[in-house]
Amino acid sequence: MSEALDYARRLLAEASVTPATGSVFDALEAMLAPLGFDIHRFTRGEGEAGSDEAPVENLFAIRRGPEGSGHFAFAGHLDVVPPGEGWRFDPFEPTEHGDLLYGRGAVDMKGSIACMVEAVKHVPAEAGTISFIITGDEEGPALHGTRALIDYMEAEGIKPDLCLVGEPTSVNQLGDMMKIGRRGSVNIWLKVEGTQGHVAYPHLADNPVPKLVAMLAELDALTLDTGTDWFQPSNLEITDIEVGNKAHNVIPAEARARISIRFNDVHTGQSLSERVAAIAEKHGGSALPIISGEPFLTEPGSFSNMLADAIEAETGIRPEQSTTGGTSDARFLRSVCPVIEFGLCNATMHKRDEAVAIPDLDRLARIYTNAALGALALETE
Amino acid sequence: MSEALDYARRLLAEASVTPATGSVFDALEAMLAPLGFDIHRFTRGEGEAGSDEAPVENLFAIRRGPEGSGHFAFAGHLDVVPPGEGWRFDPFEPTEHGDLLYGRGAVDMKGSIACMVEAVKHVPAEAGTISFIITGDEEGPALHGTRALIDYMEAEGIKPDLCLVGEPTSVNQLGDMMKIGRRGSVNIWLKVEGTQGHVAYPHLADNPVPKLVAMLAELDALTLDTGTDWFQPSNLEITDIEVGNKAHNVIPAEARARISIRFNDVHTGQSLSERVAAIAEKHGGSALPIISGEPFLTEPGSFSNMLADAIEAETGIRPEQSTTGGTSDARFLRSVCPVIEFGLCNATMHKRDEAVAIPDLDRLARIYTNAALGALALETE
Ligand SMILES: [Zn+2]
Ligand SMILES: [Zn+2]
Repeated sequence: MSEALDYARRLLAEASVTPATGSVFDALEAMLAPLGFDIHRFTRGEGEAGSDEAPVENLFAIRRGPEGSGHFAFAGHLDVVPPGEGWRFDPFEPTEHGDLLYGRGAVDMKGSIACMVEAVKHVPAEAGTISFIITGDEEGPALHGTRALIDYMEAEGIKPDLCLVGEPTSVNQLGDMMKIGRRGSVNIWLKVEGTQGHVAYPHLADNPVPKLVAMLAELDALTLDTGTDWFQPSNLEITDIEVGNKAHNVIPAEARARISIRFNDVHTGQSLSERVAAIAEKHGGSALPIISGEPFLTEPGSFSNMLADAIEAETGIRPEQSTTGGTSDARFLRSVCPVIEFGLCNATMHKRDEAVAIPDLDRLARIYTNAALGALALETE
Repeated sequence: MSEALDYARRLLAEASVTPATGSVFDALEAMLAPLGFDIHRFTRGEGEAGSDEAPVENLFAIRRGPEGSGHFAFAGHLDVVPPGEGWRFDPFEPTEHGDLLYGRGAVDMKGSIACMVEAVKHVPAEAGTISFIITGDEEGPALHGTRALIDYMEAEGIKPDLCLVGEPTSVNQLGDMMKIGRRGSVNIWLKVEGTQGHVAYPHLADNPVPKLVAMLAELDALTLDTGTDWFQPSNLEITDIEVGNKAHNVIPAEARARISIRFNDVHTGQSLSERVAAIAEKHGGSALPIISGEPFLTEPGSFSNMLADAIEAETGIRPEQSTTGGTSDARFLRSVCPVIEFGLCNATMHKRDEAVAIPDLDRLARIYTNAALGALALETE
């Protein structure tokens, strides 16, 4: 008898708006400890609540297989985005209604973690090593979350061979999409300084706005690339412009803008930042980049095929191998080993009345079991 | 013995930050009444202090000449811009220090009005009709100032033949510049609406910023004209851009900008507004113009030559006939009759420690006397 629904209810009952610490980790520990996992929990960050340095809890659990066996890791997060107003049920009192289980985190991603716990019960210890890499900060600044877990594993000499992240990648039905990569992301602040003056005497002023406009027109016209076999073309969006000049008759002293680039593995955050800075300087301005993530790709192959087989066996559909959408912690984990993301349907993630289809929990647990078995078999080939 | 300095001190002693009413007009009335002027004062505007509809006082004074004689008008304003901080002397306690008389309005333009009063004492009544068109709101919204005076004159069937506005047009020394015209001015608010979305899914959004950037680039590249015999080329400045999007990962729903055009008499505010609106619409946006003034020109000829002669006779220099700078009430008066602006040196106007060179007061009074005599002689030719 599957306990996936019960596990999900227990995790959803613990309010854990990002960054998460404490009781939601107690709940997960209570599920994993009886299954033979060694559990290490630690907290990072010493700042005030609400700051980027607020404390974050992380949990690493491992059940070691026979000497020389493979190591397969499940990864995910127990923090959730704030529920917002207007829910039909209390977002932290998991409620079954019809076929659905409501609660903040139902699909993103306490539901998936419940399925992982259920899944490992059906993976014999002799099949290999299984671990859980679980953070309390994926939805926030992610400074002290998965990165700290990776540091911990490195310090302990622990290195999974393959990793599955349980983000809600399915779109219309469970199994229709997995993510084999994600684009990188960089935000760049642009600035042009000029000389303030009166519009009636433009020769005494130096208007920074036309320079910024020309800069932005050139940036907007860039074709960064035409996409790759696995990635759509990189995309640049102008997300903000700010002059802030209230006086109708005044030529302003400064003009600022911000762009956001989602880019594939043709580029790095650094290479794009340098390219944008050169254009900014050509137009008399400057550029300040903040790289939020480099792109990653786990090229289609034995891992993705095995996972697709496991999904198809359960659902009857073969998942699209996508690299679309935002960033996830998989961007960090890719530095450790090949990583793929697969999980529940994302229609209600980050929304009011987040809910999971209850039958999907057992189905995902079976997929995860077969994925773990398949991955450990691959690694020991 | 000239009383120009005394008149100036009396006007400067009445604080009259725009919009002006009351005591500063009492002071002027007390000077003009003994000189045979009929004086009509009226207040317009019923709004709260600080609003565009705050009460404004206006004064029209006339000394009628013989039947059939010409009519020459002096025009100006008794309101002043706020003094601001840090004055060396109290801005509303006129103070002589060396050759200078300090006080807010010393050059812009209570000093000039004092010279006008002194000037008319030396113009015999039989030379013709002299009037004063004096408002308490030139520095503010100017809704109920000179326009109301023009309405009043029209209702009374009073129409000057020529008008001299006493704005401080001199630059480095008294007499080096007069203004025979002014450019028009229009501010235009531009807006592009799009569809908000996440930068990772640009196909689901419609970013308004690139459209605004392309629109502004096209506007900035416009050559409106190459100038005329009397006007410099019209000029367009982008004075503000505002998107106001704080979220780095969000494509904004709307983008706004503001431009300011100073234009010569090749254009009208309406023709430019339509041209800009067409470009805005081409790029998917809209344009909202506010025309602050149409251009005007009093073509060089007998009036400007006579005035230049009067200036040269007193100062030894021949004034440049300029159309540069901001707008003034001359833009309204031009609908009544030919109008030229000439007055004191503008170096300290609208600044801290506004001051007039005391010897300039008597010199300007003599120029104004000769200008009035010359104008009335022209008109009766
Ligand atoms: Zn998530
Ligand atoms: Zn003035």
